[in-house]
Amino acid sequence: MAETQKATVTFGVLNETSDIESRVALTPDIVTRLGKSGVSCLIESGAGAAAQYTDEDYANAGAKVASRDEVIAGADALGFVDRPSAETLAKVKAGTWIIGMLGSFTDADYVASLENAGLVGVAIEKLPRQLSSAQSMDEMTSQNSVMGYKAAIAAADAYGSFLPMMTTAAGTIRPAKALVLGAGIAGLQAIGTLKRLGAVVTAYDVRPASKGEVESLGAKFLDLGLDFSAGQGEGGYARALTAEEQAAQQAAVDEKAAGFDIVITTAKVPGRKPPVLLTKAGVDGLHRGAVIVDCAASDLGGNVEGSVIGEQVTDGGVKIIGAPYLASGVATTASNLLSRNVADVLAHFVRDGKLAQDLSEELDDALVVAGRAEAPAAKKEEE
Amino acid sequence: MAETQKATVTFGVLNETSDIESRVALTPDIVTRLGKSGVSCLIESGAGAAAQYTDEDYANAGAKVASRDEVIAGADALGFVDRPSAETLAKVKAGTWIIGMLGSFTDADYVASLENAGLVGVAIEKLPRQLSSAQSMDEMTSQNSVMGYKAAIAAADAYGSFLPMMTTAAGTIRPAKALVLGAGIAGLQAIGTLKRLGAVVTAYDVRPASKGEVESLGAKFLDLGLDFSAGQGEGGYARALTAEEQAAQQAAVDEKAAGFDIVITTAKVPGRKPPVLLTKAGVDGLHRGAVIVDCAASDLGGNVEGSVIGEQVTDGGVKIIGAPYLASGVATTASNLLSRNVADVLAHFVRDGKLAQDLSEELDDALVVAGRAEAPAAKKEEE
Repeated sequence: MAETQKATVTFGVLNETSDIESRVALTPDIVTRLGKSGVSCLIESGAGAAAQYTDEDYANAGAKVASRDEVIAGADALGFVDRPSAETLAKVKAGTWIIGMLGSFTDADYVASLENAGLVGVAIEKLPRQLSSAQSMDEMTSQNSVMGYKAAIAAADAYGSFLPMMTTAAGTIRPAKALVLGAGIAGLQAIGTLKRLGAVVTAYDVRPASKGEVESLGAKFLDLGLDFSAGQGEGGYARALTAEEQAAQQAAVDEKAAGFDIVITTAKVPGRKPPVLLTKAGVDGLHRGAVIVDCAASDLGGNVEGSVIGEQVTDGGVKIIGAPYLASGVATTASNLLSRNVADVLAHFVRDGKLAQDLSEELDDALVVAGRAEAPAAKKEEE
Repeated sequence: MAETQKATVTFGVLNETSDIESRVALTPDIVTRLGKSGVSCLIESGAGAAAQYTDEDYANAGAKVASRDEVIAGADALGFVDRPSAETLAKVKAGTWIIGMLGSFTDADYVASLENAGLVGVAIEKLPRQLSSAQSMDEMTSQNSVMGYKAAIAAADAYGSFLPMMTTAAGTIRPAKALVLGAGIAGLQAIGTLKRLGAVVTAYDVRPASKGEVESLGAKFLDLGLDFSAGQGEGGYARALTAEEQAAQQAAVDEKAAGFDIVITTAKVPGRKPPVLLTKAGVDGLHRGAVIVDCAASDLGGNVEGSVIGEQVTDGGVKIIGAPYLASGVATTASNLLSRNVADVLAHFVRDGKLAQDLSEELDDALVVAGRAEAPAAKKEEE
């Protein structure tokens, strides 16, 4: 695979920079890497600037820097951090592959629009993450990892005291007590980073398996005294709880949260409204100056009741940072990881020098949501 | 000293909150502490709010919460984070003690204004820091320690990549390389915090003694190949270099700085324009996306040529954060430490239940810069 092949597939990436997005779906080192797989790259001028990658960097790596329209016209496949707008899609020629987080779990209309435009939609959110061949394509893992790191840094930056214990001439300052709710990839990375900074960390997750993971990082597992066994859902994510389970969990978390200085919540469930882990009662139980970072904040709500995107301070002096865009705040590294993930998805579909689907393969069957080469494979009996 | 005495001295603290200042010179725990030394406290309503201390907290601790004018009228001594404005001073009655960072090294006019108003000026910047009895009064140490911690957090927050090494499915990400210029209290705390976060840290200071301190924290000492022996100046601070020495240092630092991802500069010299440690050539030698935190930034310039207070990005994509107010960003803890320092200065002057100077004591002689009870003690022969 490492030998250089003649470039017969052209991969295009557009500038997605906005107030909330600094990432780019292609970084210069990946241009070089794709070249070895027979893929040449087209990138919109300025696309990497917010992530510190210049047009010159891309050109030096062998990409062609072009205008937006040129990229759209010349690309066999387009890769995205997010997903293209309807306006952008209207310009894309039939047969083009669209690779990104397409929102296919919740937005059937969007998928239909790709289908109707004759495009091939490759939805990275559908990646079967358990497959070892999918690991290097796992954008959710890479971006959630960045998000968890940044959540801890953001919490430390917002908190009015030290995270580590400090011994000074004026006495000893106790370390901050942090609570991480949701111990998936993001939560574990948040735990690790908070621990690095010297905080005393406690964590909770509905999945029983997470107890060992939390403890292996030196954090304490929060025992709510509740049993949500079989909490692990499809694709390695937590399943949604029933209403009764959720109410019981909320009441227990609200009570236990009092006394923590920092709370980081990371329970995003793909395609659904995020579960409320901390209600208003829990927030009100925190002390003045406590900081909450809600990574699941969205227009539909977050893990914290009443949290919104951006910063707010409650009447009780608790700072709530609704921060769904944290990965973008570590744009250079986040882009590099994401670019590698997207490129590996693309490279998977390069067969005999051309983009091609093989829906008999599990990866292809899962990822291709529009423009499928044949009717969806009949669901297998064992599923 | 621990027994409760009748309160005969009244200590007043005003609200100094502004866009750049969130600290307060008195925290509730110190109210209780001062009560044991026979000092009662008056605090302006809202003074602690930005540092998360409410009026109720102060009242519960035994302080009287009052209006600004009431505090000024009722206090025998007023304590400050910064120093009072001329407008505030005009309201203060003769005989009142003014305790704070009075800027006496550079602003003789201000000291004269205290003298002319019949006030007693206690200048904490003049604290003889080497005295063991002065350690708990050492506001410069406590606030610089907070500043160094926050400088590292701010750098991590601004940097577009991880500080720690990360091993992911998409490969290993190298740790950030950080350079700390100035290894005093702030620099050492910045080193420690950067190390906690997993960065690879190098540091430099003009004082030869700092090499051992830097290395004891696990950081590398930057060898410039220059000899500024006897680099330690009065009061434990670095001395000012000659113009030739400074130019040689700048050229060497500029050259060595290239390749670092994060640069934190902490070389404040009390009462003087900060030395330029990194010139424009050094900044231009850094890579796009590199972050500089200049803790010495001021209206007179900082440690980095061209740095201003606030954030700027150079044409070469280097982010420079001119951040003289970092301690205020950790307002709760910074206030608590500062309050302890100011209170211990105050308590030192409480003699037989009253505020009194004894200029035969080294501490008194150093600290009292206006309204001295007698002519300055003749400089002793051995000095």
